[in-house]
Amino acid sequence: MKLLYFVPGSMSLNHDGARELQRRHELLKEIAPPDVAVSIKDYPQGPASIESVAEEQLAIPGVLSAAQSAQQAGFDAMIIGCYSDPGLAASREVSDALIIGPAEASLLFSLGIGRKTAIVTTLRSSIPSMEELVYRSGLKDRVACVRAVDIPVLQLRNEAARVRAELAAEVRQARLAGADSVIPGCMTLAFMDLEEHYVRDLTLPLINPVRAAVWLAYAYWGAGLHHSRAAFPVPRKLDQFSLGTASHERELADAKRAQS
Amino acid sequence: MKLLYFVPGSMSLNHDGARELQRRHELLKEIAPPDVAVSIKDYPQGPASIESVAEEQLAIPGVLSAAQSAQQAGFDAMIIGCYSDPGLAASREVSDALIIGPAEASLLFSLGIGRKTAIVTTLRSSIPSMEELVYRSGLKDRVACVRAVDIPVLQLRNEAARVRAELAAEVRQARLAGADSVIPGCMTLAFMDLEEHYVRDLTLPLINPVRAAVWLAYAYWGAGLHHSRAAFPVPRKLDQFSLGTASHERELADAKRAQS
Amino acid sequence: MKLLYFVPGSMSLNHDGARELQRRHELLKEIAPPDVAVSIKDYPQGPASIESVAEEQLAIPGVLSAAQSAQQAGFDAMIIGCYSDPGLAASREVSDALIIGPAEASLLFSLGIGRKTAIVTTLRSSIPSMEELVYRSGLKDRVACVRAVDIPVLQLRNEAARVRAELAAEVRQARLAGADSVIPGCMTLAFMDLEEHYVRDLTLPLINPVRAAVWLAYAYWGAGLHHSRAAFPVPRKLDQFSLGTASHERELADAKRAQS
Amino acid sequence: MKLLYFVPGSMSLNHDGARELQRRHELLKEIAPPDVAVSIKDYPQGPASIESVAEEQLAIPGVLSAAQSAQQAGFDAMIIGCYSDPGLAASREVSDALIIGPAEASLLFSLGIGRKTAIVTTLRSSIPSMEELVYRSGLKDRVACVRAVDIPVLQLRNEAARVRAELAAEVRQARLAGADSVIPGCMTLAFMDLEEHYVRDLTLPLINPVRAAVWLAYAYWGAGLHHSRAAFPVPRKLDQFSLGTASHERELADAKRAQS
Amino acid sequence: MKLLYFVPGSMSLNHDGARELQRRHELLKEIAPPDVAVSIKDYPQGPASIESVAEEQLAIPGVLSAAQSAQQAGFDAMIIGCYSDPGLAASREVSDALIIGPAEASLLFSLGIGRKTAIVTTLRSSIPSMEELVYRSGLKDRVACVRAVDIPVLQLRNEAARVRAELAAEVRQARLAGADSVIPGCMTLAFMDLEEHYVRDLTLPLINPVRAAVWLAYAYWGAGLHHSRAAFPVPRKLDQFSLGTASHERELADAKRAQS
Amino acid sequence: MKLLYFVPGSMSLNHDGARELQRRHELLKEIAPPDVAVSIKDYPQGPASIESVAEEQLAIPGVLSAAQSAQQAGFDAMIIGCYSDPGLAASREVSDALIIGPAEASLLFSLGIGRKTAIVTTLRSSIPSMEELVYRSGLKDRVACVRAVDIPVLQLRNEAARVRAELAAEVRQARLAGADSVIPGCMTLAFMDLEEHYVRDLTLPLINPVRAAVWLAYAYWGAGLHHSRAAFPVPRKLDQFSLGTASHERELADAKRAQS
Repeated sequence: MKLLYFVPGSMSLNHDGARELQRRHELLKEIAPPDVAVSIKDYPQGPASIESVAEEQLAIPGVLSAAQSAQQAGFDAMIIGCYSDPGLAASREVSDALIIGPAEASLLFSLGIGRKTAIVTTLRSSIPSMEELVYRSGLKDRVACVRAVDIPVLQLRNEAARVRAELAAEVRQARLAGADSVIPGCMTLAFMDLEEHYVRDLTLPLINPVRAAVWLAYAYWGAGLHHSRAAFPVPRKLDQFSLGTASHERELADAKRAQS
Repeated sequence: MKLLYFVPGSMSLNHDGARELQRRHELLKEIAPPDVAVSIKDYPQGPASIESVAEEQLAIPGVLSAAQSAQQAGFDAMIIGCYSDPGLAASREVSDALIIGPAEASLLFSLGIGRKTAIVTTLRSSIPSMEELVYRSGLKDRVACVRAVDIPVLQLRNEAARVRAELAAEVRQARLAGADSVIPGCMTLAFMDLEEHYVRDLTLPLINPVRAAVWLAYAYWGAGLHHSRAAFPVPRKLDQFSLGTASHERELADAKRAQS
Repeated sequence: MKLLYFVPGSMSLNHDGARELQRRHELLKEIAPPDVAVSIKDYPQGPASIESVAEEQLAIPGVLSAAQSAQQAGFDAMIIGCYSDPGLAASREVSDALIIGPAEASLLFSLGIGRKTAIVTTLRSSIPSMEELVYRSGLKDRVACVRAVDIPVLQLRNEAARVRAELAAEVRQARLAGADSVIPGCMTLAFMDLEEHYVRDLTLPLINPVRAAVWLAYAYWGAGLHHSRAAFPVPRKLDQFSLGTASHERELADAKRAQS
Repeated sequence: MKLLYFVPGSMSLNHDGARELQRRHELLKEIAPPDVAVSIKDYPQGPASIESVAEEQLAIPGVLSAAQSAQQAGFDAMIIGCYSDPGLAASREVSDALIIGPAEASLLFSLGIGRKTAIVTTLRSSIPSMEELVYRSGLKDRVACVRAVDIPVLQLRNEAARVRAELAAEVRQARLAGADSVIPGCMTLAFMDLEEHYVRDLTLPLINPVRAAVWLAYAYWGAGLHHSRAAFPVPRKLDQFSLGTASHERELADAKRAQS
Repeated sequence: MKLLYFVPGSMSLNHDGARELQRRHELLKEIAPPDVAVSIKDYPQGPASIESVAEEQLAIPGVLSAAQSAQQAGFDAMIIGCYSDPGLAASREVSDALIIGPAEASLLFSLGIGRKTAIVTTLRSSIPSMEELVYRSGLKDRVACVRAVDIPVLQLRNEAARVRAELAAEVRQARLAGADSVIPGCMTLAFMDLEEHYVRDLTLPLINPVRAAVWLAYAYWGAGLHHSRAAFPVPRKLDQFSLGTASHERELADAKRAQS
Repeated sequence: MKLLYFVPGSMSLNHDGARELQRRHELLKEIAPPDVAVSIKDYPQGPASIESVAEEQLAIPGVLSAAQSAQQAGFDAMIIGCYSDPGLAASREVSDALIIGPAEASLLFSLGIGRKTAIVTTLRSSIPSMEELVYRSGLKDRVACVRAVDIPVLQLRNEAARVRAELAAEVRQARLAGADSVIPGCMTLAFMDLEEHYVRDLTLPLINPVRAAVWLAYAYWGAGLHHSRAAFPVPRKLDQFSLGTASHERELADAKRAQS
C-alpha cells in the first residue's frame, strides 16, 4: 500500500521543521506494516499550527488539493495529519484515495477498547470545538470527556517533562469522569514517543491517533473497503476544481517514487 | 445598523450575475428595517455555486477575509450568504462583527413557530450534509426531515414553475413526516420571491432564511447581544492572519459609504 | 407594533407592586425599538409569585384569557411575563396574537451566542422543573447546566448586593460546567438592571430574557412570521371558551389607547 | 386502599353524563383489587372534553383542588382521569396523596411488556402534543409512534364500530413502525370495554390506561412507595393555596364514606 | 398468584446459605400481597455471587431452565433474583410465565416517584456494566448516576454498619448529582431490611428492588398484562431446548404444592 | 498473529457441517493477511444456529471457555463467530486475548465509510434484538435501519438465488431510509462469497463482518492496542472459573500447532 501522510500546515517553514518532518517520516515507517510505503508532505501555504477553528479551516484548501494529487500520483490512502480532521468529508468527495482522519480513526478504535474514551488535547480554548467534533461524530455517548494539558502546540516539544506530568494528571481526571481509555488529541503530542516515555504513568490504555490512522488505512485497504459515494458524492462541477497544480503533483510523484 | 450580506461565491462572474447581485441588494433593502444600511458583496475567487461540501469549504477563506474586513470597515454585522453557513464559527473567532448564518438563523426562528420544522434544499445529494448540519446544531429533535426539490442551484431561476411545483410537493411530504413549518434550504431559493409567489400553495408557514438572518442580526444588535468569546476565542496567532487585503477593505468601505 | 407584557401574577397587589409594575413598564419602553408601543398588565387573581409548578399552573387561566383579550384589543404580540412560560402552547391555540415566552426566547437567542448556555434561577427547589423545561424544549444538548442563587423571588429586590454576589458565583460554576453564556431564569431578576449593575462582574455574556422576548417578538413581526397552526391548532370547541370578559378587554383596549 | 378517580372535566353536565360517570364507576370497581374502595368525581367547572392543550390547562385548577381535598378526605391515591395527565407534577407538590396519571402509568407498564409501544389517540390534531408528552417523559426511545383514530372524544361512544375498525387499522400501522404493544391514548376510549370487544382484532397486546393507573396506584401503595419531595417540593407559600373549598371536601368525604 | 423467586446463583451452597434462602423466603412472604404464594429456589450450578459480566452470563442457562420449568409447574410469574436481570429477554422467549427483572422493575417504579433516580450497587468495578444496563434500557435521561458502596456481595451481611454508612454517603452524593430517589442495585443489599434499618438515614426515598419486582409482577397479573410476543418471539427451534429436566420440574412442582 | 475463529454453535454436527467449517477456514485464510495463522473451532454443545436471544445466550458458556483456552494456547486474538457478538464483554473479562465481535467490528468500520449504515439480517423476528444491539452500542445515530431477508439461517446456503434477490431488495429499501453502506448481519450470510456474487447488484458498499473482524483484530494487534481493564475488569473470583477443560485446551493447542 502507498500511503501519504499530509501535514496540513507549514511545518517545513517552522524552526527545525524540516528535521521534525523527517523525524515523523521515520516514526511512520516504524509504525506502519512492512508492505506500506509511507510518504510525508506538508502545506507551506497553511498555518504554522492548528489551534483554532479559523486555522483549521485555512488548512482545508491544501487538504483538498493534496487529496486530488495523491490520487493522481497513485497513492492508495492519505492521512490528514491534524487531529481536527480538516477537510475530511470534502476531500472524500474530490478524491478516489482512501482519506483517513486521525480523530475519526482514534475514536473508531476506542469503541473496541472500552466503553468510554477521553480526548486530551493541547489548549483549553480548543475544548469546545473538540467537543463539537465528538458531538458531530454521533459518538458522544462513548466519550466521557475532553480535557487539555493547556500547553500551546509549538511549545509541546520543548516542554516534554511538563507535558508528561500534565497528561498523567488529565488522565486521572478523565478516569474519574468515567473514561476507560485515552486519546492524545493533537498530532504533535501523538508523535512525542508516547508509548516509550509516557504510557508507564498512565492508568488507562492510550490510543495513539498516528497508529490508529495508519492501521485503519491499512485495514480498510486490506478488507477491500472504500468510502461510500452515497455519503460523499462527486461534486457536479468537479472539472472546475483546479486544486492540484502540476508542480504539486510532480512533487508527490517524486516522493512516492523515492519510496518504492 | 450597518449590515454586510456576503455571497461566498463568484456570483458576479456568473451569467447575469451582476444583475442578480443588484436584485438581491434591492430585496434585502425591502426586507430590512428602515434604520439598517445593507451592503452586498460577492467572492470572485469562490465557487460558482455551493452544492457540495468541497465547494462549501473552498468558500471559507473568502468568508474569513470578509469578516475581518467587515469589522475594519465598521459593519455591525455580516450575513454569510449560503445556507450551509460556511465558516460561521471560524469567522466569529477572527472578527468582532456579529456573524450570522442563514441556516442557524432560520432553525433558531423555527423554534418559536412550531415543534418541528423541515428543510427543503436543492440537490438530493446534499441531503446527507444538510442532515449533518442539523445534527451538529443539536436541534435534530426539532427538525422533522430534510428534503430536496432536486434541481441544481444554477437552474433554479430558469425553472421557476417547476421549483414551485416541487416545493409544494416536498412540503406536503414534510407535513406527513411531522413538520409544522418549512425552510427553503438554499439562498437562491430564498431570494425567489417565495412570499409573493410560493406561499399560497404551501400548507405550512415558510421561514425564509434571508428574512430570518436579517432580523436575527437586527434583534441581536437591538438587544445588545454578541457572540461569546468563551465559545469563539480569538486565535493566539491572530496577527498572522493576513486575511483582509487593503484593496478588499477599501471596496467594503466604499460599499458602506454608498449606503449612508 | 403593539406589544402587551402580561405579568401572570398579582404583582399590583404586592407591597409596592403598582410602582414596580410602573417601573417595569418604563424599562420595557427603553428596551423596545421606537416603533413599539408597550402596555403592561398583571393578573390580580394569580399567585403573588411563581416559585413552584403549582403556582405556574394556577397562572395559566389568566394567560389564556389575556391572550384572547390581547387579540381582540388589537395587540400584535404578547409576552408572558414569567420565566417558566406558563400557558405558552395553550395560548397560541386560542389567540392570533404572537405569544412569546421569555424562557423560549432566551434559549433561542443563546444558540447564536455560543455553544452552551446556563440558566441561573432563584430557588434551588426550582432546578428540577427548570431542567425539565430545558429537556422538553429539545435543547438540552445546548444547555450546560441550571443553577440557582437560592433567594426567594419576593426577596430579590431587597437583597440586591447578595443577588449580585451569588449570581457572579453561580456564573463561575456554570463556566466550569462548560457554559459560554448565561441567562437569569426569573423575570424579577431580569428586571434588576442587570446590564447596568451586574454584567461587569460576569465572565460570560448575559442573555436578559426581557430583552430577548421583546426583540424576538419584534423580529418575528418584522420578518412576517407567525406560529404554525399545524403545531397549535385552534381547539374544536373554541366558541365555548369564555375566557376574556368584556371588562378585561376594555381595560386592555384602554391600556393600548394610552400608548398610541 | 381508598382511591379517587377524578374526571377533570364536566362529564356530569354532558348528555347522558351522569350515567356514564356511574358506568365508569362500576367498571373501576371491577378492575380494582377487592380491598380497594374506588370513588369517582368530576369537575363541573372544567371543559366538556379535553382535546386541546388549552382545555388540558383549564382542567388543572380542578385537579389541584381535588388533590388537596382527596388528602383531607383520607384518600390514599387519586387518578387524574385524562390521558394527558393534566396537573400531575403540580398536584404532587400540593398533596400527600399518591397522584397517578394514566399516561405515565401506561407508558411505565409498557416497559416490561415489550421494547417499543405505540399510543393511539383520538384526534389527529392532538398528535403533536401527545408526542411532546412522550418526549418530555424521557421515554421517546421506547415509543415507536403516536397515531390517531381521528374521531372526536364526544362521538366515540356513538361510533363504536368505526372506532373498532380505525383502532385495528392504526395498530397495524403501529406494528409496521416497530411497536410491539399499544396504548389507547384517551380515557373515553379506555373505558369502551376494549378488552371485551376490541382486543380480538389486535395483533399487539393492549395496555389499558385505566387498568394501568389503578394497578400502579395499588402497587405503589402495596410496596410502600411515595412521590419524592426532592422532585415535588411543597410550595413555600402552600398556606396561600385556597384550593379545596369546604363543600368540595365534604362531597369527597361523602363519596368515600359511601364506599366503606 | 403463584410466584417463583429464582436466585440464579448457588446460594444454598454458600456458608449459611440455606438459612439465608429461608430468611429471604420469609421476607418475600411478608412483602407480597396475601393472595400470592411465593416459592424460592436457587441454582446450585451457578456462581456463588454475581459481581462481573462473566458471572452474570454463566447464570443465564439456569434462568432459562427455571423459566421453562416454572411455566410447566404452573407458576404465574418468576422473578430473576439478581439486579442485573440476567436472561430477562431470553427467558421471556422460552416461557409463558411473566418474567420480572428487579432492575427493570425498580427503574420502572422510579419513573412515578421522581424525575431522576440513582442506583447504588456493591463493587465500584460494576459501575460500567450497570451504566450500560441503564443505557440499554433507554431510560438514561431518567437516571442521575450509578454509584457503589464498594463492598463485595459476600461481605455485605457481615458488615451491616459499614454498608449503612456507605449507603448514606453515596445517597448524599447521588442527591448532589440530581437524583431524587435511590435504588439499591444488588439483591443481597435489597434483602438487608433496608426499610427497617436504613431508610431513616436517607434523604431520598428508597425503591427496594425486591418490593418493586413482587408488586410489579402482581400488578401485571392483576391488570391482565403479559409480555408481547412481537417483542419476545418464541424461538423457531423451541422443541430443541432441553432446558428443564424432569427432576428440576418435579422440585418446582413440590415447592409450589407446599405453598398452596 | 495467531487468530482463532470460534463458531459458538454446533456447526460440525449439522448436515454437511464439517465441510462447511473447513470451507470457512479456507475463506478465512484467503481474507487474512499473510502473517496471520487462522484456526477455526466450533462448540458442539451449543445451538445448531443462533436465531433468538435464547440461543444467543446458550452459546455464551462456550465462548467464555474458548476465550480462556485461546489465551492458554497462545492465540493473540479470537473472533466470536456470530453476528450478535454473544459473550463479548464477559470473555474480555476472563481472557487476555483480543476478543473481537463481528457486529462491533463491522459497525466500527462503517463509521469511516459513510454517515449511516444498515444491517440486513436473516429473520424478521430478529430485528428487535438487533436494533437493541445497535442501541446498546451507542451508535444508533449512525445506523439508518435494520432489515431482514426473512430466510432462516439453516436455509440460506440452499437458497442462494433467493438470498441474492432479497438482499438486493432490502438494500434498496435501506438506501431510501438514508443508509449509505450495508452490513450483512449474519455470519452464514457473510461467508456466502458476497463479494464475488452479490456486490454487483448492490447500490451501496457492503461491509462484510468476517473481513471487518479479521482486519480489526489485525489492526489492533499491529497498533499495539488492547481492551481496557478499566472497562473489562478481571472478576474477583476468577480462579473459580473452571471454564476451559484440559481436553479443550489440548484441542486448541493442536489446532494452532497445525497452523504454524
